[in-house]
This record gives sequence, structure tokens and C-alpha cells, in this order.
Amino acid sequence: MTAEHFDQLLGLEYTEITKDGVTATFTVTPQLQQPYGILHGGVLCSVVESVGSISGAAWWDGPVVGTSNHTNFIKATRDGTLTARSVPVHRGRSQQLWDIEITDEQQRLIAKGQLRLANLDKTGSDTIGRS
Amino acid sequence: MTAEHFDQLLGLEYTEITKDGVTATFTVTPQLQQPYGILHGGVLCSVVESVGSISGAAWWDGPVVGTSNHTNFIKATRDGTLTARSVPVHRGRSQQLWDIEITDEQQRLIAKGQLRLANLDKTGSDTIGRS
Amino acid sequence: MTAEHFDQLLGLEYTEITKDGVTATFTVTPQLQQPYGILHGGVLCSVVESVGSISGAAWWDGPVVGTSNHTNFIKATRDGTLTARSVPVHRGRSQQLWDIEITDEQQRLIAKGQLRLANLDKTGSDTIGRS
Amino acid sequence: MTAEHFDQLLGLEYTEITKDGVTATFTVTPQLQQPYGILHGGVLCSVVESVGSISGAAWWDGPVVGTSNHTNFIKATRDGTLTARSVPVHRGRSQQLWDIEITDEQQRLIAKGQLRLANLDKTGSDTIGRS
Repeated sequence: MTAEHFDQLLGLEYTEITKDGVTATFTVTPQLQQPYGILHGGVLCSVVESVGSISGAAWWDGPVVGTSNHTNFIKATRDGTLTARSVPVHRGRSQQLWDIEITDEQQRLIAKGQLRLANLDKTGSDTIGRS
Repeated sequence: MTAEHFDQLLGLEYTEITKDGVTATFTVTPQLQQPYGILHGGVLCSVVESVGSISGAAWWDGPVVGTSNHTNFIKATRDGTLTARSVPVHRGRSQQLWDIEITDEQQRLIAKGQLRLANLDKTGSDTIGRS
Repeated sequence: MTAEHFDQLLGLEYTEITKDGVTATFTVTPQLQQPYGILHGGVLCSVVESVGSISGAAWWDGPVVGTSNHTNFIKATRDGTLTARSVPVHRGRSQQLWDIEITDEQQRLIAKGQLRLANLDKTGSDTIGRS
Repeated sequence: MTAEHFDQLLGLEYTEITKDGVTATFTVTPQLQQPYGILHGGVLCSVVESVGSISGAAWWDGPVVGTSNHTNFIKATRDGTLTARSVPVHRGRSQQLWDIEITDEQQRLIAKGQLRLANLDKTGSDTIGRS
């Protein structure tokens, strides 16, 4: 599974993908800002969603679907390159929970999110997104 | 305040903005999907963020900043036009809390999010995003 | 299933239990307060947990287990009788999501919580709490 | 500030209180269980609330009030002594965010919660719980 579609719009690039965590980076561009010129909070949620989903799929070695994304915004940012890193909180037979921290180039915490995932049938017989 | 920047990437269009709630619509396009071809969860979070922020700014009649976005994904969707509507849970002197529901053309619930906002100084002397 | 154990400590009394929602009441006593003399937030979370769990079990007609409880505190309260009411957000084959509002005698919102539940095997062959 | 009231019902005992984190323990007793004989999720939320609030008050050196408690339940437990430890995510001029992990005697994660606090006026002129 590779980053596609919406990740491309975000400019998200994965630098490490393992079963125990994922690292990705992206750069704050004007099109990712909200009307006040600061990075749109939805971009931070989206990065949490992508990085957490890739993390869960790598560990489960099969399809997963996000069920809940709770992202806290810590510090406003207007530019620069941000880095997102995931760590597992829980990896179970039916659900996973991952923490994702997004930091700036000075290692300051910009946002912290938590993504809950449902593990889907590896044979693909599940209907994706039905829970 | 008008929709700009990231909202344009999402194709989000506001159809009603009042102090008691906001309505907006957007269409699921391929660039808003994740690798499995379903709408990226981060897009739903982003719509919650935009619609909730506009709601809070309209009521406060001044700048607000999102502090926490918790979005639950209910039903996977691949296409069509979705509608987001906000309702206030709490509108206080320093913080606001809004519920935002996103439904499809058959009125089925696709996602439900909750956005917490901090009200900023209307004179603009506050540093945005510092809490 | 009847209210037992921890619910008794809380003094929680169910006045209506249906598949579409549950209503319960409790009274703020000194032992439910925190050191400043206001109702302890954990009591509000606990009422969300109990009322949401009973709601989910009534609809599923089998055992359920809470996986995530997100409760927002709106208004501090020191005394009186509070009422909690649940409404379903999502009732699926494997997971449920319920909103629970807690109001005071003047119908003011005291807290609003959201409880995510996992539906367990009705035959009881599941290990409760393993996800 | 010392543990009082509801904390006593929970049997919560603080073993360390610093500006950078708090540790507390409690024992699972029958009165803290739900009807299936497992520890009530609301107790875990309540411990998150108490430990996070004491943490925030210790750092702020003044009164704080919880605004949002999001607790995830990882593993069901029926007995034993549990330990809760807090770590700061964000400590700002108006708000704080703390992570609290609750583990059992084998260091297994039982629950992980996040508490958002509003810092109140140290002179006490604020109305507690008004936000």
C-alpha cells in the first residue's frame, strides 16, 4: 500500500513504515492554510488519519478502517516542514489505537492525535467501512 | 470571513452561515479519496474543522481557534455530494463546543464530529493559536 | 440487566430503558464532589458510561463493552438532581456510538458525552473486554 | 490540595505529586465493578480526571477545571491494584492537556485517558466552571 490520492494533495511523504510505527513529513504551503494564514487544523487531522492508518495496516498486514480521530491542536504554525510519528497504544484482534505526534523543525509539538482503527477481514470479504 | 485556501482544495461551499449554525456542501472527488477508493477520513475531519470554526466565528463575531477536533466515521462513501451542518453544544465567554453532522444525499449519517474552540481577543491583540 | 455495584455508589436510578434510549437520574451528594465542592467530573463520565452501556445492551440484546468515553463538561454544579438521556448515533453489527446529555432541574446542559461500544458474542463465547 | 470526597470512594491514593506528573494507585473492589463483575469504565475515567486535575493544579499552582475527558479502555480487569501516571502534553497560559495511563501489576495497559483543563484565576475571582 502506498500513499495516494489525498496524501498527494497534502504533500505527505513517508520516510519510514514499520509494524511499530510510521514517520512522514510534509511542508506547510498556502493551499494548506485557513483564512488567517495559519495551517488548517483539518490538515493536521488528515495527517493523523493517514499516518495512523498506514501504521495499523502495516501491523495488521491487511486492510483497516478508521473509526474515530481525535486530534488536539497545540501550537499554530504558518510555514516550515512538519514531521508526524506514530506509536501504538493498543493492537488487538479487532481494533487498534495509535498515538500520532506532529512536530516542527525545532521539535516543538504542533498537534497530537489519536486514531482508532477497526481491523478488516484479510480475505477482503468484509464490506469496507461497515461496522 | 469567507471560505479560502484549504476549503477551496476540499471544494467546500457554504450555503448558510448564521450565529446558530452553518451548512456547507462538497462533492467526493478522486483526489479526496484514500488508496482504497473511499473518501479519506481526514477530509471529513477537515470539513468538521471548517464548518465548526466558521460557526464559532459567526457567533463570537471575532477570531476563534480550534483546540480539539474529535470526528467519528460512521459510513464509508465513495462518491456523491455531502452536506455538513453544525449545532451549538456550548457557547461560552472563553470556549465553544459545536457538533457537526455530515450526511449523504439519502440523509444517511457519514460522520459526526465535535469541535472545541477558544475565543480570541476581538481587538486582535491575542497571539492566534497560543493557549 | 439491572443497575448494580458502581451505579449504586453513584445513586443512579433508571427511569426508562428502551432500545432507542435510556433515561436515568441521580442526586449530587457530598461524596460525589471533588475538593472544591463541585460535582466530580468523573461522576459525569461514569453516568455517561453506565447510561450508554445500558442503552447499547438494550438495543443489541446482548453483552457490550465500552471502548472509548469522551465526556465534555459544560457547567459546574454543586447540588440538585441531574438527568441523563441517551440517543443513538450509530448502531452497527460490531460497534455502537451513543450520545448522552446530562441536564439539571432547569434543563441546563451540565455535560455531554459520547460512548463507543463493541458488541460482544451473544452466546458468551467471547472474552469480555478483549478487542 | 489533598484527595478528598469522590477520591475516597474510589480509594485513590497519591504516591507522588510534582509539577511534571502525578502517580496514584487504587484497588479494584466489588463496589467499583459493573454488573458483569469487571471494573466499571467510569472508575477509569474518574481516575484520569482526578490524576489529571491534580497534575494541572500542581503545575499551575492554582485552581483548574476539567473541560474534556477522553478515556480509552484497553483491557478489562476484575481485581488487583492499578497505578495511574500522568505526563504533560501541553501546559499553556489558559489551557493544559495531560495524558494519563493506568496499568496493572504486570505493567499491562488497562486504560489511557486525556484530560483538558482550563486554568482559573489564581486570585479566585473567576467563577469556577464557567468557560
